[in-house]
Amino acid sequence: MKRTLGTCYYPEHWPREIWEEDAARMAALGLTWVRIGEFAWSRIEPEGGRFDWGWLDDAIDVLGEAGLKVVLGTPTATPPRWVCDKHPDMFAVDADGRRRGFGSRRHYCFSHQGYLNECRRIVTEVAKRYGRNPHVAAWQTDNEYGCHDTILSYSSAARQAFRGWLRARYPGHGNDGDIKALNAAWGNVFWSMDYDDFDQIELPNLTVTEPNPAHVQAFRRFSSDQVVAFNRAQVDIIRQYSDAPISHNYMGRIVDFDHFAVGEDLEIATWDSYPLGFLEDRVGATPLDQRHYARQGDPDFQAFHHDLYRAVGKGRWWVMEQQPGPVNWAPYNPAPLPGIVRLWTWEAFAHGAEAVCYFRWRQAPFAQEQLHAGLLRPDSVAAPGFFEAEQVAEELADAPDVAPAQAPVALIFDYDAAWSWEVQPQGQGLDYFGLVFDLYRAFRRAGLSIDILPPTQRQFDGYRIVAAPGMMVMPDDLKTALMASDTEVLIGPRSACRDADFNIPVPLPPAWPDLDVTVSRLETLRPDMPIAVAGGGSVRNWFEHLEGGAEAVFETESKMPVVMRSGTTTYCGGWGDDAFFDRLVKDLCNRAGVETLDLPRGVRVRDTATERFWFNHNPHDVEIEGETLASAGVRRDPI
Amino acid sequence: MKRTLGTCYYPEHWPREIWEEDAARMAALGLTWVRIGEFAWSRIEPEGGRFDWGWLDDAIDVLGEAGLKVVLGTPTATPPRWVCDKHPDMFAVDADGRRRGFGSRRHYCFSHQGYLNECRRIVTEVAKRYGRNPHVAAWQTDNEYGCHDTILSYSSAARQAFRGWLRARYPGHGNDGDIKALNAAWGNVFWSMDYDDFDQIELPNLTVTEPNPAHVQAFRRFSSDQVVAFNRAQVDIIRQYSDAPISHNYMGRIVDFDHFAVGEDLEIATWDSYPLGFLEDRVGATPLDQRHYARQGDPDFQAFHHDLYRAVGKGRWWVMEQQPGPVNWAPYNPAPLPGIVRLWTWEAFAHGAEAVCYFRWRQAPFAQEQLHAGLLRPDSVAAPGFFEAEQVAEELADAPDVAPAQAPVALIFDYDAAWSWEVQPQGQGLDYFGLVFDLYRAFRRAGLSIDILPPTQRQFDGYRIVAAPGMMVMPDDLKTALMASDTEVLIGPRSACRDADFNIPVPLPPAWPDLDVTVSRLETLRPDMPIAVAGGGSVRNWFEHLEGGAEAVFETESKMPVVMRSGTTTYCGGWGDDAFFDRLVKDLCNRAGVETLDLPRGVRVRDTATERFWFNHNPHDVEIEGETLASAGVRRDPI
Amino acid sequence: MKRTLGTCYYPEHWPREIWEEDAARMAALGLTWVRIGEFAWSRIEPEGGRFDWGWLDDAIDVLGEAGLKVVLGTPTATPPRWVCDKHPDMFAVDADGRRRGFGSRRHYCFSHQGYLNECRRIVTEVAKRYGRNPHVAAWQTDNEYGCHDTILSYSSAARQAFRGWLRARYPGHGNDGDIKALNAAWGNVFWSMDYDDFDQIELPNLTVTEPNPAHVQAFRRFSSDQVVAFNRAQVDIIRQYSDAPISHNYMGRIVDFDHFAVGEDLEIATWDSYPLGFLEDRVGATPLDQRHYARQGDPDFQAFHHDLYRAVGKGRWWVMEQQPGPVNWAPYNPAPLPGIVRLWTWEAFAHGAEAVCYFRWRQAPFAQEQLHAGLLRPDSVAAPGFFEAEQVAEELADAPDVAPAQAPVALIFDYDAAWSWEVQPQGQGLDYFGLVFDLYRAFRRAGLSIDILPPTQRQFDGYRIVAAPGMMVMPDDLKTALMASDTEVLIGPRSACRDADFNIPVPLPPAWPDLDVTVSRLETLRPDMPIAVAGGGSVRNWFEHLEGGAEAVFETESKMPVVMRSGTTTYCGGWGDDAFFDRLVKDLCNRAGVETLDLPRGVRVRDTATERFWFNHNPHDVEIEGETLASAGVRRDPI
Ligand SMILES: [Zn+2]
Ligand SMILES: [Zn+2]
Ligand SMILES: [Zn+2]
Repeated sequence: MKRTLGTCYYPEHWPREIWEEDAARMAALGLTWVRIGEFAWSRIEPEGGRFDWGWLDDAIDVLGEAGLKVVLGTPTATPPRWVCDKHPDMFAVDADGRRRGFGSRRHYCFSHQGYLNECRRIVTEVAKRYGRNPHVAAWQTDNEYGCHDTILSYSSAARQAFRGWLRARYPGHGNDGDIKALNAAWGNVFWSMDYDDFDQIELPNLTVTEPNPAHVQAFRRFSSDQVVAFNRAQVDIIRQYSDAPISHNYMGRIVDFDHFAVGEDLEIATWDSYPLGFLEDRVGATPLDQRHYARQGDPDFQAFHHDLYRAVGKGRWWVMEQQPGPVNWAPYNPAPLPGIVRLWTWEAFAHGAEAVCYFRWRQAPFAQEQLHAGLLRPDSVAAPGFFEAEQVAEELADAPDVAPAQAPVALIFDYDAAWSWEVQPQGQGLDYFGLVFDLYRAFRRAGLSIDILPPTQRQFDGYRIVAAPGMMVMPDDLKTALMASDTEVLIGPRSACRDADFNIPVPLPPAWPDLDVTVSRLETLRPDMPIAVAGGGSVRNWFEHLEGGAEAVFETESKMPVVMRSGTTTYCGGWGDDAFFDRLVKDLCNRAGVETLDLPRGVRVRDTATERFWFNHNPHDVEIEGETLASAGVRRDPI
Repeated sequence: MKRTLGTCYYPEHWPREIWEEDAARMAALGLTWVRIGEFAWSRIEPEGGRFDWGWLDDAIDVLGEAGLKVVLGTPTATPPRWVCDKHPDMFAVDADGRRRGFGSRRHYCFSHQGYLNECRRIVTEVAKRYGRNPHVAAWQTDNEYGCHDTILSYSSAARQAFRGWLRARYPGHGNDGDIKALNAAWGNVFWSMDYDDFDQIELPNLTVTEPNPAHVQAFRRFSSDQVVAFNRAQVDIIRQYSDAPISHNYMGRIVDFDHFAVGEDLEIATWDSYPLGFLEDRVGATPLDQRHYARQGDPDFQAFHHDLYRAVGKGRWWVMEQQPGPVNWAPYNPAPLPGIVRLWTWEAFAHGAEAVCYFRWRQAPFAQEQLHAGLLRPDSVAAPGFFEAEQVAEELADAPDVAPAQAPVALIFDYDAAWSWEVQPQGQGLDYFGLVFDLYRAFRRAGLSIDILPPTQRQFDGYRIVAAPGMMVMPDDLKTALMASDTEVLIGPRSACRDADFNIPVPLPPAWPDLDVTVSRLETLRPDMPIAVAGGGSVRNWFEHLEGGAEAVFETESKMPVVMRSGTTTYCGGWGDDAFFDRLVKDLCNRAGVETLDLPRGVRVRDTATERFWFNHNPHDVEIEGETLASAGVRRDPI
Repeated sequence: MKRTLGTCYYPEHWPREIWEEDAARMAALGLTWVRIGEFAWSRIEPEGGRFDWGWLDDAIDVLGEAGLKVVLGTPTATPPRWVCDKHPDMFAVDADGRRRGFGSRRHYCFSHQGYLNECRRIVTEVAKRYGRNPHVAAWQTDNEYGCHDTILSYSSAARQAFRGWLRARYPGHGNDGDIKALNAAWGNVFWSMDYDDFDQIELPNLTVTEPNPAHVQAFRRFSSDQVVAFNRAQVDIIRQYSDAPISHNYMGRIVDFDHFAVGEDLEIATWDSYPLGFLEDRVGATPLDQRHYARQGDPDFQAFHHDLYRAVGKGRWWVMEQQPGPVNWAPYNPAPLPGIVRLWTWEAFAHGAEAVCYFRWRQAPFAQEQLHAGLLRPDSVAAPGFFEAEQVAEELADAPDVAPAQAPVALIFDYDAAWSWEVQPQGQGLDYFGLVFDLYRAFRRAGLSIDILPPTQRQFDGYRIVAAPGMMVMPDDLKTALMASDTEVLIGPRSACRDADFNIPVPLPPAWPDLDVTVSRLETLRPDMPIAVAGGGSVRNWFEHLEGGAEAVFETESKMPVVMRSGTTTYCGGWGDDAFFDRLVKDLCNRAGVETLDLPRGVRVRDTATERFWFNHNPHDVEIEGETLASAGVRRDPI
């Protein structure tokens, strides 16, 4: 498959007179895809039951006739005012009990049945009308599930649905569930929290002190399931009317629902990549790195998500929204370094993207995102990003097709674990994503390509190293599958430390057959008290006291084991700093026979089946194997 | 007009027996004015319709017979409990939806018609009774509009009034307004935010992510208009019964309503000057400056407000509340440096104040402000501020009258722009006041006197430099008036960047006739990434990429233009640091033939028509032209 | 009385099969006490009126037969779901008006009469059943009053009760109270806050700006009284059925209610000592000290509470919950330094504890505290704390009995003053506990033992120094009693500065007979502006300007008096840094003939009637009088 480019376009925002010219310029730029429609409900159905299809028919035709392929979005992220008036309780409620009302977007509760039915209705109408339209080549459901913290809702609808979900999880006679089973599973005896009936169970907000972690984790799982069901309702309808692939555009570092589970129902995973906005508001880099990469974005954050969504999309994935200039929503919004939009685009292709679409075609002069750059300025003059997209389009002409290759290293990413860590961080600011990402970055610094795997993976053939740090619930068959493989397996800290109901298992974790290691005690550490590891690096944040007869691979300077191993299974009892994780990665690679590289700061490598890519994320040139790689430069070596 | 002093007094707080002695001591101190009554509603009208005038008649008489002139306040900032019981929904509601109840002050919503009628009633009674009283020489409406964040209310009353205000702004057939015009003006198509009817429009709080900036800005303008109407209702009544001038006491750095618009209805503007409290809680100085000036206050903050309220008062202005000692409400409340109360007082006179009144006469031993110093201690012993007031009173005897002189530099201050920046800061902590104040400080460091002008000013005769930084909406006739003048005009950053409905105009800003400059892109900057300007200084916070044929006056070290100019119009595309703004000010002054001074840190100058004043805001002596100016010293040179 | 050990046990959490073994292991470890039952309401009374006594009868018997003495808790801190369903308005309401619901613990409002009656009922049942049980040797009421910020409730029930409380405080004709007396006492005239009726008085939350401090302070006193009444209701019932002593387990640095007043109704005071958790979340140590003591806890914080609860218990006190390993609830939760659990235990005994009980016997694998260490791990293996407890048990065998000795120094601790400072801190972060603790620490650094006294103390025989810093209300008879004693008395800053209704008295404070000192002005200071004191040290936070003829003992470098004295009364007008307080303590000790010690950092001393204890809180050894005291070491010298 040829690599392609695209953009996001809102014909409803612009005068009819300029659509043809816009379409022609898109085509001339070398774009293939144009995503439309995802916020247009109020223009498609201005009042309940009255549809205005004319403009959309027209827009699709204009774009299609220009040679573009349309990705059509379902407009359910922005229900119009009249829908909300019809369902005044359809809004999500925040943890403080406040209704999250109309006036921006994503103003709905996933559990509200009335709204879900409205969605089924509008999706049916749209799918019916455009399901066989020759220009509609793909679909998108809704927009950025989870953006603006919209997964968890403390509404009446959610409470009602949660009780039903719990009944199904702890089933009993009739429809009533087995409340004693729930009490036992959650340990409700602890503070006399026993229930007599599922209808007594509230959502876990506004308690005096923290609620039962089992209660919260159940609510997290329920909330994720509601997203899956909401999305599936749309997919089921679209499939009745269209053969085009269906996608959803996920958002960076949002772990509030299980992307793998949603992805199961879709053909393509896409994500929205805003490297500068993310560096400012969610990467969690050090202040020095935030300064160094302020105009380039973090050198690993996009790569991680590329690898993640390759897994979520079962191989098929896009960047649906690529930042082309300054955005409007981060704490600070600098302009990208010249050349870096091109680098971002090529990096996505290096990680296997089929398409990269720039958001948005033209900067809107009105409403919330008026300071969000597009490929064009509000006055239709080409913005700097336009020319970098143009360069990529030209380069793509001679470039090889999408050519995925299995990576030597696999990292399991488990949304359930992300919730578990949030429910019980045990130390300020400790989170699962941060732990996994720290290890991912160490593999990247060693020049390695990485595959991310879902927690349901049981087949590890071809991998030399598989890591599953921090995965708090590890089913027995996963343990078995990992042990059965001949790969080096890295687990810990915190791996396999809870059962399915959020209880500490006995025997104590990790209870890993053939690995004589027990976590006898754990502690979390102030940032100013790292524990030095003999030979270099240190453990910080999280430290487990390990017992057992396995070999101590790394020890603290005071001779406490940090990493222990039996055979090909390695348990790491701490959250390391960069130096420590670099040592651990080198150690595993040595054992696994995986070659590593010594890369300058800010330089990263990624291999496809046909090429090795080098990316210079620095604002200055670097020397690579005797050659200069310019700032924001991309080098492609055939393999 | 002779410069005068005064104080704020609460006869209702003190035993009747000491009133005569208090009045006599005020007169002996050399005070002219005594403000009373503004918090006394519960004692004037203890229950609905029953008035107790005796004590107030008596108090006015005692004060007047001692030779003092009374400023009588309307008591509407503190409605008594029974008024609230009568109108249980009269309270403002905060952005979180919480009622802001009884128990302190300013507990009312400006949009509540029932409360407005109560105000009309009590003001009528008070004005009738004292409108012709010979001792009542001036009026004050309410007290410190906007203090304690009381302009924005998210109540039902406000919502109802906002809808009416919008109907009037987007008029249509009958009384219904033109909702399509509003949808178009706001760009509601953006996220399907279209309305079918004005009654669907909510106040812009508790949305999922940020609401439409056009929506918020409309709410800000509406909220300001409500204050103007509330104040005007009182003024209209007082005018029926009294010829005495009417004033209101504004509060420092409160920009939530248009002070100019309120000022249009009043004869005198007054403000409440708390230099130490302000330095701690709102100036935004660096920690080093906060430390250096902790006992003196910022050297420019009071001056700025003096100049601002001279404009708001159309030339007539007072300090109604002058801090005389430690206050009770700032994060830290240090004692003033000896001599600085005198300096503050003289500084106000240097900027044209007619009167300076100390708040308060005697420190109250009870209630909220019991740790707020007065001229007297609670035991009636003179506090340190008393003696400094006494010294000023003696100095005033031989001093010239109020003698205003037009300044060489004018700075336009636009409340609408302040709201625009709050609605859309684009970078953390960026605000309009901060930008304007940074430029003001640079002019002050150059030894210049400054006039502040309202955004409605169209006549610039006599000014050598006029600056309008950050004024996001600039009507065409203002552009024309500025171009027609022969003054040096400084605009930018962000000047003229929005139309009246908060949309980006095309052609792109500033779209200034005869100035070939276009802001092609803008970015906001982390505090740790200033952009160095060739020749010295740097741009921080805000940086615009400028295109066009105008002359580049300043460039970054990487050759991007920062300041561009055609003829007498200069556009500055960045928010400079002090060094940069000093260079820009010097450059403009050179062109305009305005002489500048090299002043030591903390020394400031202000010219009246008859004198040049020098103020030493430092806690140490300085040398000025070979003479020592003591710490907290004031020097007056005849011009 | 022999010193004893114990633990906290939850038979309802564990299979019946292991109770005997648990009991046997407790006894073998050398424990005397086992506290049970305080969270078991849902298992004692699974539904209203149906009791399940069997398991509890059984548990008490198993434990008793093993030789253990049972402390039986009333289960009122965790009302079961069915109780809450019966009284849906029994929950506390937070200051933002949000209901604090079911799902954790302490979910009740102290003012709710329906819940109070439920408590009376369950306590009656429990007391009847076990009041004469030979194994029940002590009682505990509820659990940790005030933990999780549960004293202040803004519920309807609280509002109603508050009005009644105010009527009683300002009594008038009939039951209506004298509202004019309240208005006068509070100074409600200040901002027209006068009331016509007590039923108009709201709780002091959600006002526009700060409410009247008299109003808030009344609410604080009321809220404390509600706790006293709630506790007394239980005590009155238990006393009818049992002769065993009754206790309550207080929590560290919780000053929201008057512990002395609750303690009046109890035989024994206990407290819950979590040195590492407290250092992280409430001590307020410097970052360097937080790092240094991260595994040991603050060297004075536990000691302070030991001394405090010795006073609250009128001599009889325990540690009811002693941290035995990492906890789960602090920002970071490190493991204790080896040996420090033993040190903590011995320190409690050195301060006079009768018993120290470890919380908890076995780490629970479920619910909120699953990461809270016990003496046993979840798999019943002994955790490190177990062995330190074992060592103490062995050491106790040969140790002397509890042997209290009056200390040379007394410090008055007044909860009312703590509320006053919170109501009116006047400077960011200033609080009464912090001031008193800073002075306490200085006495400790000088090697002194200290007695804490309640504010009702009038007999000071035997003390060489009595200090009452920051005690804002000092009744005349306390002044008289202090003057009548021949001890050195230290007061100030802020001592005696308010009358009983929160007004500034005239003559101005401290108005101390025979001490010619007047606080003429006060100021609070930024952290970066300490005021240097001549001779060493400085004043920070709080500084009073002192006038009068008394001797100036310490002065600032600019010659303002900081400490003044007449005879044996010393007034300190500032909040000193450590160096200053060390000088002040030395000065007082010299005068009082109290010998002081020069102790290394982190070493502390405590004398009983029979022994001098030395404790090394450092993570390294120190030299004491030529001998090495190991890290976490305890040295006992006979006196
Ligand atoms: Zn077509
Ligand atoms: Zn008269
Ligand atoms: Zn027995």
